[in-house]
Amino acid sequence: MPPSSRPEVFPVHTPAASQIFTTVLSHGPLTRSEMAGRTGLSAAAVTKAVRPLIEAGYLVEDVDEEARRALGRPANPVRVDGGRALFLGVKVTGDELIGVLTDLCCRIRVARHLPLTDRDPKPVLAQIAELVRELLTEADGFGVRVRGLGLAVSGDVDRAAGAVRYSPFLEWRDVPLAELAAMTTGLPVTVDNDVRALTVAEQWFGAGVGLSDFAVVTVGAGIGCGLVVHGQVVAGAHGVAGEIGHVAIDPAGPLCHCGNRGCVEAIAGEEAIVAAVGEAAGVQVADAAEALAFAHRGDAGARAVYARAGEAIGRGIATVANLLGPELVIISGEGLAAYDLFAEQIRDAFAAAAFGSAAQCAVRTRPLPFEEWARGAAATAIQSFITTDQN
Amino acid sequence: MPPSSRPEVFPVHTPAASQIFTTVLSHGPLTRSEMAGRTGLSAAAVTKAVRPLIEAGYLVEDVDEEARRALGRPANPVRVDGGRALFLGVKVTGDELIGVLTDLCCRIRVARHLPLTDRDPKPVLAQIAELVRELLTEADGFGVRVRGLGLAVSGDVDRAAGAVRYSPFLEWRDVPLAELAAMTTGLPVTVDNDVRALTVAEQWFGAGVGLSDFAVVTVGAGIGCGLVVHGQVVAGAHGVAGEIGHVAIDPAGPLCHCGNRGCVEAIAGEEAIVAAVGEAAGVQVADAAEALAFAHRGDAGARAVYARAGEAIGRGIATVANLLGPELVIISGEGLAAYDLFAEQIRDAFAAAAFGSAAQCAVRTRPLPFEEWARGAAATAIQSFITTDQN
Repeated sequence: MPPSSRPEVFPVHTPAASQIFTTVLSHGPLTRSEMAGRTGLSAAAVTKAVRPLIEAGYLVEDVDEEARRALGRPANPVRVDGGRALFLGVKVTGDELIGVLTDLCCRIRVARHLPLTDRDPKPVLAQIAELVRELLTEADGFGVRVRGLGLAVSGDVDRAAGAVRYSPFLEWRDVPLAELAAMTTGLPVTVDNDVRALTVAEQWFGAGVGLSDFAVVTVGAGIGCGLVVHGQVVAGAHGVAGEIGHVAIDPAGPLCHCGNRGCVEAIAGEEAIVAAVGEAAGVQVADAAEALAFAHRGDAGARAVYARAGEAIGRGIATVANLLGPELVIISGEGLAAYDLFAEQIRDAFAAAAFGSAAQCAVRTRPLPFEEWARGAAATAIQSFITTDQN
Repeated sequence: MPPSSRPEVFPVHTPAASQIFTTVLSHGPLTRSEMAGRTGLSAAAVTKAVRPLIEAGYLVEDVDEEARRALGRPANPVRVDGGRALFLGVKVTGDELIGVLTDLCCRIRVARHLPLTDRDPKPVLAQIAELVRELLTEADGFGVRVRGLGLAVSGDVDRAAGAVRYSPFLEWRDVPLAELAAMTTGLPVTVDNDVRALTVAEQWFGAGVGLSDFAVVTVGAGIGCGLVVHGQVVAGAHGVAGEIGHVAIDPAGPLCHCGNRGCVEAIAGEEAIVAAVGEAAGVQVADAAEALAFAHRGDAGARAVYARAGEAIGRGIATVANLLGPELVIISGEGLAAYDLFAEQIRDAFAAAAFGSAAQCAVRTRPLPFEEWARGAAATAIQSFITTDQN
């Protein structure tokens, strides 16, 4: 079928079809029997689910001559045609918007940054619309439609309601962001917490593919955590989950902005590190880069600050492991720039505080460029596109 | 069909049938349209799943004359016939075995205690066999078969493998308990961690019915936690999960048997409380009952020990809430005997340490008699019976 005559509706209307498409998206290319094996569906159910997806151009069948020769029959692997649809993802920080245009396989095609001039919802929305227009213009060159927009915001975000309940960095409360952004952009919009969005990208397209239980710990301005349990991202019954930054590990520790003492974030967050390095060195330290430079020049006080941060992060990760027993913890975030200064402490503190076989959990670092946060937002839009009938 | 000619195989061979039966078990009686509403299955799929279960006597249809009059057509509610099958549950503690005989709805019919004479696996197994024989004799009076045995043991238990990896109270390592118990009793055996088993009972038959995310925190000799996330009990990739007792909240706190300082259990576990009350009162305190008596007589030092324990438990619960955002935390366990001495501290510490809307999580106490632990074991046997083809 030529692209122009293809139906514009995504032909997934059953849980089985959604499951098949998701499986091929994360694990493909797969033969039909591999799909059946992975999903537990019957061969007939797989064939029934695959057909309309191939007809609509979302899945393509590669003729594998080698396999045919080896098996004496065709065992055509099926994969997602990433170019069949485009998506936008925008991460909203306190200072700038980071936007990406991705294909259906969440590969970044174009990335753009836009400094924020004002943090109020209205001007931020206008700037989101501006960035979206720019990316849509870029998308025109690909000849396929943009099918959804994902927005990632730090803080307490209710994805189902499409609302930002509370974002400390933006100082937003109860902003119905999905609805507002849908009105200004005309696209279906998914709004999610930024760490959860990054976790979706890792689960579907990254280091978490194939794992039913893992965690993504982000180290930077805040200390965040995305959790996948039983194959699903944990959202929390009331919007809060994964708050590893507010696991309190020391009642005699520094005061946290949340009002408690000794939270992981109050010891290992960027602001805490900058303040502590300045105090240790007896000078004014402007930002994380300067704090890092101090420590890298060998200042013992500064190095001790990073060591303490590593210990706090390691103990936070051990708490996650003791409660949930994940297979893997992925450490990421811009704070990894200091990884040489606290990697050992993270590992030691984790090993000491992990209980019994929880210590078997693998802990890996994965430096992700800042565009990955926006890619996470695009991943949530792809997820919405695949799993709902909104399109 | 008279009972004697009923098929002895549980007629559930599809995920849909298992889902229907589980739904009626937890929420019944339900009409077929209510089942469809709750499970998302079609009316046809419900009818197809219900029929063989009714024919085999596991479900019964009540003729609801009132509903028929009101609707002008039958809207027969269907419920599980609890008397259709029996199960055994045994909780193994360091001192005794607690055994129960339950029906298919996990209602306790008979309860028995048996003091342990020796903690080695072999004599414990012999005593389990003795208790099982006793309960099977009781079961004879009901005229239906016992279809499974659940064993609940504290520590690191691999339910899938049927093995106790490590149980500190029993000093067991790598005991293939399910296989050994199946050989001595001739019953299908399910082995699980005791707190997880209790959580299964709460999820299917207790305060967790209908909740997708909740936690059970048990306070007593140990401080344990069973977690339900996305409707499933968390087992941990490596067997450890829910170790709220080893969430370390104070690096300057007392040394824990796990090697760390300031674990919740090192402050709020029975042994820690007995030791601390003895120290505060300057006398030898024999056990939890004596420690409690001291505090109840108004000894300020003893009361402070309980207050500190409550604070530790509250902070542990806040950590669970900050990471997982459950709807409900149920506090239970024999330690609730001291609840008047630390309830306020639990609530205050939880409220102070819960981050943002995580504080909306309801915290409820639910005193459960000690037989409930054995009932939890029976619940796991019922779960295995319903969800597998072992029968």
